[in-house]
Amino acid sequence: MSLLTPTSIAIIGASSQEGKVGHDILKNLVTQGYAGKIFPVNPKGGEILGKKVYVSIEEISDEVDLVIIVIPAALTPTALEECGKKKIPSAIVISAGFTEVHTDEGKKLEAELVAIAKKYSITLLGPNCLGLVRPSIKMNASFAKDLPPAGNVAFVSQSGATAVALMDRAPEEGIGFSLMASIGNKAALDECDLLEMCEKDDETTVIGFYLESIRDGRRFREIAARVALKKAIVLLKAGVSNHGAAAAASHTGALAGSDSAIDALCSETGIHRAHSSEEFFDMLSVLSTQPSLLSDNIAIVTNAGGPGILATDAAEKAGLNLPALTPENDAKLKPLLPAAASTHNPIDCIGDANAERYEAALIACRNDINMDGIVVLLTPQVMTPCEAVAETIIRVMKTASLMPVTVCFMGGKSVEAATKILREHHISVFPTPERAVMAMAALRAQEARSKIQEANNAQKKITITAAPVPGCGIEAKNLLAGMSGLLDESTVQSLFKLYDLPLPKQALAKTPEDAVTLAEKIGYPLVAKISAKDIIHKTDIGCVRVNLKNKEEVLKAFTEIMANAKKFLESTHDSQLTTHPDGVLLQQFLPVGDEFIVGAIRDASFGPLILAGLGGIYTELFRDTAFRIAPVTQKTAYEMLADLKAWKLLLGMRGKPQSDIDALASLIERVSQMMMECPTIKELDLNPVIVSAETVVIADAKVILN
Amino acid sequence: MSLLTPTSIAIIGASSQEGKVGHDILKNLVTQGYAGKIFPVNPKGGEILGKKVYVSIEEISDEVDLVIIVIPAALTPTALEECGKKKIPSAIVISAGFTEVHTDEGKKLEAELVAIAKKYSITLLGPNCLGLVRPSIKMNASFAKDLPPAGNVAFVSQSGATAVALMDRAPEEGIGFSLMASIGNKAALDECDLLEMCEKDDETTVIGFYLESIRDGRRFREIAARVALKKAIVLLKAGVSNHGAAAAASHTGALAGSDSAIDALCSETGIHRAHSSEEFFDMLSVLSTQPSLLSDNIAIVTNAGGPGILATDAAEKAGLNLPALTPENDAKLKPLLPAAASTHNPIDCIGDANAERYEAALIACRNDINMDGIVVLLTPQVMTPCEAVAETIIRVMKTASLMPVTVCFMGGKSVEAATKILREHHISVFPTPERAVMAMAALRAQEARSKIQEANNAQKKITITAAPVPGCGIEAKNLLAGMSGLLDESTVQSLFKLYDLPLPKQALAKTPEDAVTLAEKIGYPLVAKISAKDIIHKTDIGCVRVNLKNKEEVLKAFTEIMANAKKFLESTHDSQLTTHPDGVLLQQFLPVGDEFIVGAIRDASFGPLILAGLGGIYTELFRDTAFRIAPVTQKTAYEMLADLKAWKLLLGMRGKPQSDIDALASLIERVSQMMMECPTIKELDLNPVIVSAETVVIADAKVILN
Repeated sequence: MSLLTPTSIAIIGASSQEGKVGHDILKNLVTQGYAGKIFPVNPKGGEILGKKVYVSIEEISDEVDLVIIVIPAALTPTALEECGKKKIPSAIVISAGFTEVHTDEGKKLEAELVAIAKKYSITLLGPNCLGLVRPSIKMNASFAKDLPPAGNVAFVSQSGATAVALMDRAPEEGIGFSLMASIGNKAALDECDLLEMCEKDDETTVIGFYLESIRDGRRFREIAARVALKKAIVLLKAGVSNHGAAAAASHTGALAGSDSAIDALCSETGIHRAHSSEEFFDMLSVLSTQPSLLSDNIAIVTNAGGPGILATDAAEKAGLNLPALTPENDAKLKPLLPAAASTHNPIDCIGDANAERYEAALIACRNDINMDGIVVLLTPQVMTPCEAVAETIIRVMKTASLMPVTVCFMGGKSVEAATKILREHHISVFPTPERAVMAMAALRAQEARSKIQEANNAQKKITITAAPVPGCGIEAKNLLAGMSGLLDESTVQSLFKLYDLPLPKQALAKTPEDAVTLAEKIGYPLVAKISAKDIIHKTDIGCVRVNLKNKEEVLKAFTEIMANAKKFLESTHDSQLTTHPDGVLLQQFLPVGDEFIVGAIRDASFGPLILAGLGGIYTELFRDTAFRIAPVTQKTAYEMLADLKAWKLLLGMRGKPQSDIDALASLIERVSQMMMECPTIKELDLNPVIVSAETVVIADAKVILN
Repeated sequence: MSLLTPTSIAIIGASSQEGKVGHDILKNLVTQGYAGKIFPVNPKGGEILGKKVYVSIEEISDEVDLVIIVIPAALTPTALEECGKKKIPSAIVISAGFTEVHTDEGKKLEAELVAIAKKYSITLLGPNCLGLVRPSIKMNASFAKDLPPAGNVAFVSQSGATAVALMDRAPEEGIGFSLMASIGNKAALDECDLLEMCEKDDETTVIGFYLESIRDGRRFREIAARVALKKAIVLLKAGVSNHGAAAAASHTGALAGSDSAIDALCSETGIHRAHSSEEFFDMLSVLSTQPSLLSDNIAIVTNAGGPGILATDAAEKAGLNLPALTPENDAKLKPLLPAAASTHNPIDCIGDANAERYEAALIACRNDINMDGIVVLLTPQVMTPCEAVAETIIRVMKTASLMPVTVCFMGGKSVEAATKILREHHISVFPTPERAVMAMAALRAQEARSKIQEANNAQKKITITAAPVPGCGIEAKNLLAGMSGLLDESTVQSLFKLYDLPLPKQALAKTPEDAVTLAEKIGYPLVAKISAKDIIHKTDIGCVRVNLKNKEEVLKAFTEIMANAKKFLESTHDSQLTTHPDGVLLQQFLPVGDEFIVGAIRDASFGPLILAGLGGIYTELFRDTAFRIAPVTQKTAYEMLADLKAWKLLLGMRGKPQSDIDALASLIERVSQMMMECPTIKELDLNPVIVSAETVVIADAKVILN
């Protein structure tokens, strides 16, 4: 591919002036070992760093695989057009001054670049980016100072500075790169394209993303689901701050942050989500150097009790187990350690441990059927031979290539040399026991996630096209045509009927006489509530009456509710609001059961997000929620429910039988289908949904259209 | 004080053999600059490292302030006795082989040491410890290799190895020590004593504890509450793993981990709790070098967008605000930065920022009324003058000594030199933006906590002695005398009456006739439940009937409940269990309200822990709990309730009025009093406690005695 492995590169805007980006990039290519042809281009001509300077692209007679453009934004379209004419297949635009400056001019220029790239089929990276680095061919086509070590990590960054910092730090972290791509404004190539490139790139086994936005969430999910089966993907998503939740018009909107979609993305696809830049670096380091952890069982080997306890605490938090050695291995190890040592897990070789003791402990663990990974801890006590222990770890673990090891050498200068030795041998070393354990947990997740992912994919192939209520999409669209804002109760009824979403029996009473007739038809006990487009929090203003047992009570409720509603509407003084309620809605009294919420919102990048959670009064108190990206099948709906703390409620507690989980999961699937088929629905709340062993009923629903 | 500032030190067990602890300690004292007199003691006599060796303590004619004992455990009592006779006021026993080896011999030897120390009033540190380090007088009375930098951090460690690792790491973290004390087996001096020593020590302003256990939690809390007003205390508690919760006999027991007491300790006293060793190091570093953050308002100054966003995310998580500059400062700063830069907070000086731009931004923030702290971020881009920026930060912030600053220089070797410069000037530098922000949050907590603590202390002075129901302690003790295990319902009634704990009206019916008479007396509707010592989960086996509205229903319930109970008791085949229930308890039907739990358990170290939380079916599902160490006053009880997510339920939601929080808080206070006055109560559950605007009633109670 010409972008990743070009055999010749032109630099438009190559400069002889040190400190200019057009000089730095040329210098990086010329001096850091890139073996292909290099063509500096500058109307001034002459020679820079021993290379002939071409006055224009046309002047170059050779073929050019990749062009790097480093000239003022306004000049870039013309330059790219010339490259197109010369049939250069790939381009990187470093220059800034496009959409990121938020001017019309910037927007226009970027659109022009995209159009030209399309016209000439140019693969375009940038603009406003740091460039591209490919250590295996010593290509530093960026203005980052140094070529980082080569390796198997592809790093795709929406921030050039973060990429620089990571590459600068890489040598001491033991991270090697197959690729570093700064995607800048993502005018053409975006995270999806880079993910596909990394998928095909044989050098890459781990893909790290620093992203501030995801342009096409649904496409990214689709590709990631496929790639995660083969390669580890780690995501550091910045800008997770949850803004604007207060302004949401629905419970679901209030519960969903921008984060919910990212969390759903990661749990659905098997992407590792890093929650800090440190965790991101740690994950890249360990996933790129160690095999997966096949079970939860690990051994901790230490020369000190304290760090051993800290590691044990961290293991418990991470869901890892510390099994005992088998009796045979325990018996073998005991005589090799002093009496005061412990062969319980954590295995404590005690303060004066030498390399031989570490070796004995490591071999016992490596050979033990109970152990699938080892966390090695060391503190530099007076006689501790740090380097010898490092070399022992390398030697012993080399013969157990399927067993992961992570290391914490806890200290400062005393452990520096040993740490370096380990990293040179691709063993991840961390400064604290907790981070060494968390790295092991990432290796466990890598194993577990690819398994989940395989299962998910197999399942999705079957059900994604099977609509539970086939063919109602067009009917639903017709029903909603021309409507906007909060959907009225009667349309909600019709819509939900199409999707077989269970609402209680109900009827709208416009007069007191109506109320009595309808009440007798539905049956007692009844609930009465106001029906008025602009009244949202009905209970708060006395517009709901429950447990009405006879016609006298119904009559009284009707009169009071209508009076309260009118009083409220008049008091708001908002000319936008309807001043007269539609009437009073009489509903079948709801069965006793647990209250859940099922909801949906439409995300700009990921499309409909489906929510399942604990409903009713506890909804926003405990925020016990699970989100998934639609389409959600009944099986995925089950997984969502199982993610909730309230799952135990569904399973039955304290003598209460199991709820009809099938029916609830099926309801969630139909909500997902409705959201897919009705693109004008913006937000949706079914809250509460009453769930019991016998029934699942939607007690209250709110549908908001664009 | 002779332990911390001895003018002469004897080492019993001084050795000429390199690699022996008795040699290493002597060498550390002799070669690292300790200016006091040094007396090696060894029966072999001679000379070591140029010092005359005394054959016994008696042979030393000078006064000795401190003795260090490094001989086999069995010989230590005799040696300490000799020191006592010579009136040596302080001793450190390095030797191992005491209680930590879990033998009778070890236990005996340690008890002997304690007795001798008491007899001669010797201040005794250890045994089984690393020793003591006091950098200001260059005293390394430990077998740790190097003398760490002097400073204001006292580090008290229950793990010698953790202390070694921290001291080894200290120079690169910019941490300086007033003191490092390894407390080993804590035979005499424990964390409480060391905390008091640090309180009095003028060199110390920050106290860091690594602890695996706290011997006397109540005393530690009392001292910490006092010390935290003057000095920052940071605690890394290892061994937090929550074992044995499954075996707990009460909800409260199941909800409380060993962690609950530590969390309560920290929130009551203002101790900073570190959740990992990394956080511990970071807190020590920042609290020892920077002033407190006076409000939530901070500025972020950066040369790159990406890290700025990561810092913003972290600030939001930590509850810190990013206000805008005042218009005046904004107007002043704008012309000093390029057009593409941003003066919004985070202030982005963009990629090619030089020291002058950082200076302009820092001065604007330093002088701004809206800002109380600054987080400075830097990534090493091509032209970034890292060292010059470091020096600028030092210069600008020196003149704002009350405004804290934390720094992230994100990268590897490019930022090494600059990082060193900052640390030399006592500015904490972190490798990631998130850690720089979290450090700032610790400075905020330091300010906020000492304020809370002051308020708490003032309040405790008033109320701690004021018992809400005075003088019932003796009556309660008499009532419980000779009892054990699960308390029967009738004694619970009597006990709760003493403490004015509100139970519903009730009576025990032994026969069907009884049931009818009593029901008429209590009034309908009624609840009926079995009364039997050995039936705990009554609902599960059909031994509870609710909402009984007349005598027919009461009769039927009585018969069925008794039958179910007998069936259950017979089916358990446990000869330990009573085979006959006492009868059926008839209770006033409970009012409608929210369900809370109030409970207590007795912690071995901290005494009674009081629990308030969400009750009923959600108790263990959501674990929405707050624990405090008794005595809990009504005001503290309010704080506990306000800590709950369910606090909003109490305040009233969706048209429901505010509950009687006063009554609930007062109930919690009385439970605390009961736990203080009745030492045989081991565990206590009031669950649910029904809380509404009108009433607070205990619907179910379980009291377990030792």
